[in-house]
Amino acid sequence: MLFNKTVIIGTGLVGGSLGLALKEKHLVTQITGLSRHQKNAGLARKSGAIDYVGSSLEVVKDADLIVLATPIEAIIDIALKIAKKIKKDCIVIDVGSTKGSVVSKISPLIPNFIGCHPLAGSERKGAANLQKGIFNNSICIITPNVKTNKKILGKVVLLWRKLGSRVVILAPEKHDRILAFTSHLPHAVAFSLIGCIPTQYLSLSSGGLKDSTRISASDANLWSEVFLSNQRNLLSSLSAFQAKLAVLKLALERKNKKLLVNILSAANKKREKLG
Amino acid sequence: MLFNKTVIIGTGLVGGSLGLALKEKHLVTQITGLSRHQKNAGLARKSGAIDYVGSSLEVVKDADLIVLATPIEAIIDIALKIAKKIKKDCIVIDVGSTKGSVVSKISPLIPNFIGCHPLAGSERKGAANLQKGIFNNSICIITPNVKTNKKILGKVVLLWRKLGSRVVILAPEKHDRILAFTSHLPHAVAFSLIGCIPTQYLSLSSGGLKDSTRISASDANLWSEVFLSNQRNLLSSLSAFQAKLAVLKLALERKNKKLLVNILSAANKKREKLG
Repeated sequence: MLFNKTVIIGTGLVGGSLGLALKEKHLVTQITGLSRHQKNAGLARKSGAIDYVGSSLEVVKDADLIVLATPIEAIIDIALKIAKKIKKDCIVIDVGSTKGSVVSKISPLIPNFIGCHPLAGSERKGAANLQKGIFNNSICIITPNVKTNKKILGKVVLLWRKLGSRVVILAPEKHDRILAFTSHLPHAVAFSLIGCIPTQYLSLSSGGLKDSTRISASDANLWSEVFLSNQRNLLSSLSAFQAKLAVLKLALERKNKKLLVNILSAANKKREKLG
Repeated sequence: MLFNKTVIIGTGLVGGSLGLALKEKHLVTQITGLSRHQKNAGLARKSGAIDYVGSSLEVVKDADLIVLATPIEAIIDIALKIAKKIKKDCIVIDVGSTKGSVVSKISPLIPNFIGCHPLAGSERKGAANLQKGIFNNSICIITPNVKTNKKILGKVVLLWRKLGSRVVILAPEKHDRILAFTSHLPHAVAFSLIGCIPTQYLSLSSGGLKDSTRISASDANLWSEVFLSNQRNLLSSLSAFQAKLAVLKLALERKNKKLLVNILSAANKKREKLG
């Protein structure tokens, strides 16, 4: 066992699936789950992701590990609320999609807080979609800051490795700069793409549109908070995307086939690297 | 048998797969395949998609059905070349992604030409990726014009139905207006999205980026021709998309969470319709 008493706050897709995975790998002795939606926590208990449904934040008092798995604003809000309740050696992690604001706001109050971002979510949500295998063979980015205790960092790295994740360590700011391009921008694009298509045309689409907009089914509130918490970086990546789109549009306006082929060939080559 | 001698010009993913499907359903007696790339035609013959590899366009002389399955420019080019060689009652179809220019240029010369667009391709290409099942349960849009012979249209509709496709009849111009949104725009977006992401960031992406850019692996020359042959409609759909993206960006700039949630919720609802 890596940890004894564990509390997961937010028993949705990522929090609940993490509970399942922690228990399957016998990494914790017991898990208490908390959710704004009592039904979600109940579902998580029934599926074996948690052992107990907590009734208030007081359950954090004797926890050895706390996982914050709510949308971004609630992560920060809850962290501030529990800061004075938790044991001194309790380790707190989150699984949110942006790290800069989370780490800078929580670290001063909870020294043993370490930001984590498992690249393992999906457009689905809720305790009805739990999958213990989502962390296996996926990447988990861990974002310590200069004050992070190395021993505690080692323990958190070990936790994710035991779940089968490949751990990448990045500064929170660098994480946000990169993920703005590789995750937040694709979401913003997908929401806009499906948004502009006349509803009556949707029945005449093929697999391309379906795949391209899969992530536009992602939770609206959760992703609004992701966007806002990484505002500057996302604005930069949006501008970079708009510039690329404008060049393609110009080539099309000018019927410049050579330029079009060049743009598309360069995209082909880059896409190959994604596998 | 619906047709006797059949010639497929362009034995790539769609043309070759169509050969496989026609033979499996015993809809034609024999198929001759032609390809710019002799190797592709050879592969198609080995996989059973065609019976003979043709050596020149002269093979169309005694054909009862001709399928044009090349990129758009070559479809038009080849149609003009074979117009005077074919039998009077030979039916000619194509499987290209745009229909307006193809139908308007070919129909006057080949009265028995009917434009078809099976929504069944993928980002893969070449005779190495043939799949006889791609037409089953997919949509095939057929685009007759006012001069199209109803009996011949009926025969072409039957052909696609026998392959398991759901047939939708549309005027060529309407096809292009709709597909600009549901297929050509998503491709333009995917090429631009992968294009703007710094290469060194690609290793830190999850399934979202991968799915969103799958179709950016599509053939550069083929898609440049699709874009150019539907230039006006694609420019309109690009403008509609740019406008949606601009609103999202504005909401983000102003940190207007309510507006962001509204935009994302509307996208969620529309995406649900895609299934």
